Formats: sequence, structure tokens, C-alpha cells
Amino acid sequence: MPRIALVCEYDGTDFVGYQIQNNGRSVQEEINKAVSSLYKEEIKVTGCSRTDAGVHARHHVCSCDVPFIIPEDKVPFALNAFLPPDVAVKKAVYVRDDFSARFDTLGKTYIYRIYSGPIRSPLKSRYAHHVTFKLDVDKMKDAAAHFAGEHDFAAFCAAGGSQTTTVRRVHSVKVTVSSDDPNLIEIEVSGEAFLYNMVRIIAGTLLYVGIGKILPSDIPMIIDSCDRKLAGKTLPPEGLTLEKVFYKEDI
Amino acid sequence: MPRIALVCEYDGTDFVGYQIQNNGRSVQEEINKAVSSLYKEEIKVTGCSRTDAGVHARHHVCSCDVPFIIPEDKVPFALNAFLPPDVAVKKAVYVRDDFSARFDTLGKTYIYRIYSGPIRSPLKSRYAHHVTFKLDVDKMKDAAAHFAGEHDFAAFCAAGGSQTTTVRRVHSVKVTVSSDDPNLIEIEVSGEAFLYNMVRIIAGTLLYVGIGKILPSDIPMIIDSCDRKLAGKTLPPEGLTLEKVFYKEDI
Repeated sequence: MPRIALVCEYDGTDFVGYQIQNNGRSVQEEINKAVSSLYKEEIKVTGCSRTDAGVHARHHVCSCDVPFIIPEDKVPFALNAFLPPDVAVKKAVYVRDDFSARFDTLGKTYIYRIYSGPIRSPLKSRYAHHVTFKLDVDKMKDAAAHFAGEHDFAAFCAAGGSQTTTVRRVHSVKVTVSSDDPNLIEIEVSGEAFLYNMVRIIAGTLLYVGIGKILPSDIPMIIDSCDRKLAGKTLPPEGLTLEKVFYKEDI
Repeated sequence: MPRIALVCEYDGTDFVGYQIQNNGRSVQEEINKAVSSLYKEEIKVTGCSRTDAGVHARHHVCSCDVPFIIPEDKVPFALNAFLPPDVAVKKAVYVRDDFSARFDTLGKTYIYRIYSGPIRSPLKSRYAHHVTFKLDVDKMKDAAAHFAGEHDFAAFCAAGGSQTTTVRRVHSVKVTVSSDDPNLIEIEVSGEAFLYNMVRIIAGTLLYVGIGKILPSDIPMIIDSCDRKLAGKTLPPEGLTLEKVFYKEDI
């Protein structure tokens, strides 16, 4: 059976997360239903990663085996007809038989968006976490530079993860102000792999730097401590978007 | 009684429109309830304009008389505590006794956003109208230049308006590609006042220019014809946002 990888975009607001759960709508279940409807047999997809309830994805990859070939460029249109408005398949690529959307990832890029202003913004609240205080972006940039490299990120891991090691390689953490809006701050985090809630805790730590509660120069010490209590709080899901997943293949 | 003007932002998706109606949630009703709760008496606001169901506003102005003075900079925070997540008061300004949010407007700026790409985007669909075809933006820009000035815009008016004249002054119509995303096209329309659905029909006409169904040089003839059938179709509400309302005062 040919194996196909699907690049999906979704608005996580009304989902319990990517993964199938008993307590509500999941992205995975919607994609399973669409793929099963298109190919007229029960098919289950394997995703590159779980995203939590409320977390968005601009480029999430899952894969499955399919019983027959539909041209790659036709697959997204065919599947989107079966998908609800908050999920879409953007691209489909036939891959090698042993391709794993989960285990073959070379890295991922997330962006955490913070809207900083005295008043909440109804037009931004769906995709950015609102904070009322003004942030010192230069300090946040200085702090962000300390995350790159292979470190034990135990201080940046929520309890409940099932990993055997808390060592991860972060490629870069970059803080930028949106060209559209000076109050919208984007924290882009790229790395090989991440611990549970790691990006949201890095974002929370940079937020504390932005309000002066943590110094940029404290970051190496916080990483070294492996103490979750020294890092910032886990920021809420709406600010987080999985922007890109990387594979050896161009997917 | 002092009169106060309130600048509001709202996400129109889950509203039946700005104006109170019997068939669902309206922005006006939410603001009336918040103002009445804060000042502990029944107060009704007057808005600068109605927006249709699904249309958004980044800067909508309404006003009302209030029984006592709360400092201007405190009013937004006090009112936002009573407002749902999809509406916020961004600013409050005490105004002269005869200020009318509706009749004193000097002009308004709207932006209609079109997302052009083969696949729909769940992360953009809330605030942009999706079209699958590629648009010729240069032609749209050429066409847009013909709208400025005082014209009889009967060809760009939906049936059902109650205006006595269909002559309106348009200051400018500008078409730009978003710096964030080459597939996101923004049509900015500024003018003194607008007919019912006028901006959505101008956007629909420029969309027809973008796909080659109408030539840029046809626009003056379409305006002169006063024939609604010659203009493009009325585009759906989700793409439209009221961006700014202008008064003699700085509101």
C-alpha cells in the first residue's frame, strides 16, 4: 500500500488537541474520518506530534497508508471536502514505505505570540496571549540567545511527560516585534525535539524577562538548575502555533 | 449628564451585527448591558454605523450620556470587565453635549481582506474571504484608482437601503499585498459615508477585475451606469473590518 504524508493547517481553538481523546473533537479524528471517507475504508493517520488543546498549526504533518493512488495535487482538494472549516490539508506527498511522520522529524519550528497592551484585543485574542504590561523586548532578545544548543531542559518541562531523557537540542530562539503591530511580539523557537510544554515554558520565562522578573543573564543558571520552579510559568495555548516540521524529504 | 464616546473593537463572527435585533447577539446589546451595569441604570448607546452580521471592527465608535464621571482612562477597564471576549472598549473620551457618534462622522476607513490561494486557510478564514483563483493585483490597483471622488454609487448599493440619495464621496480605494503574506490582499476603502453593502460590492468588483472579468477601464462606465448588475457581486462579511471612524475630535 502506498504511504502518503499530509501537511495540515488547523485552528486549535475548538479542539481538545491533535490527538484523539474521549472528551471532545480532535484534529486526528477529523483527519481519520476524512481519509476514511475518501478511500472508503477505515484508515488511521500517525501525526508528527500531539499539540495541546487550543494550540494551532500552520504546518503539521501526518501520514497513513492508502489503498490506491490519487494524484498528489488532487488529494488536498478531495480531503478538504470532508474536513470541517477549522482543519485543511494543504499538501500531500507520497513517501517511502518506512516513512514515519513522528520518528523521522528532523526538527520543528513554533511561534509563541504575545499581545502586549493595556486593553485586550478581540481581533487578536484567538492567536496571541494577552498581557497588560509593557515588555522590554531588547532584554527578551538577549535572554533568548542563551537557549540555543544541547541542554538538559528539565527546568522547562511540565510534569507528566513520559520522556526517558530531558536533554534536547534547541537550534534557536528569536524574539521579534511584528512588522504589522508594535504590540505583537513573536517568540520563534526551533529545535530538534521538545519536552512537554517546553515552548510554552520558554515563552513564559521570556515573558518574565520582559517584565524584569528574570534577568537575561539568569537563563544559563535556570537551565543548569534543572529546577522547574526557577523558570517562568507555562503560557496558555492560544499563543502557540506549530509553524513548520522538517524532514529529510521536502514535505 | 456628561456624554462619553467609546471606541470599541469586536470580532463580528458570532454576532448578528452591530445593531440590536431579535434573532441573536448584537454588539450594541452587549455594550448597552456593560454600560448599564457599570453606571447602575439603563443606558443605551448610539453607534457610528451598523455593521452587518460577521463584519468586524477595529475602531467603532458609540456614545451615550452617563449619570456620573469616571476618569476617561479608567472607563475601558471598568467596561471590559462586563463585556464578553469578542468585544472590548479600547478608549473612552468625554465629548460635547451635542456630539453624535452617528451624524458627526467625517469619514470611515474599511479594509476588505481577500485570501487568494488554491487551498483554504483555517488560520485566515475568520478575517479574510477565500478565493481559489490567482488575482492580478496590478489590474486591481488600476481599477481602484477610479473610485475616488463624488459619484452616484447606485451601482454599488444593495437593495434595501433607506438613503434619499446614492451620491457619496470616496476619498480613496487602495489595493495592497500584505507584507506578511503574498496571498493576502487588502482593499482599503476610505470615504465620507457609504451606501448599504457598498464596500463589499466595491471589493467584489475589484475581485472581478483581479480575475479578468471586468477591465480596470470599465470602472467609470460601471459607476456612471448606476446599474447594480454591472458591478461585481457582494463579497461575504468575514473579509470586512471597519478600521477607523473619523470625527472633528480626536476619538
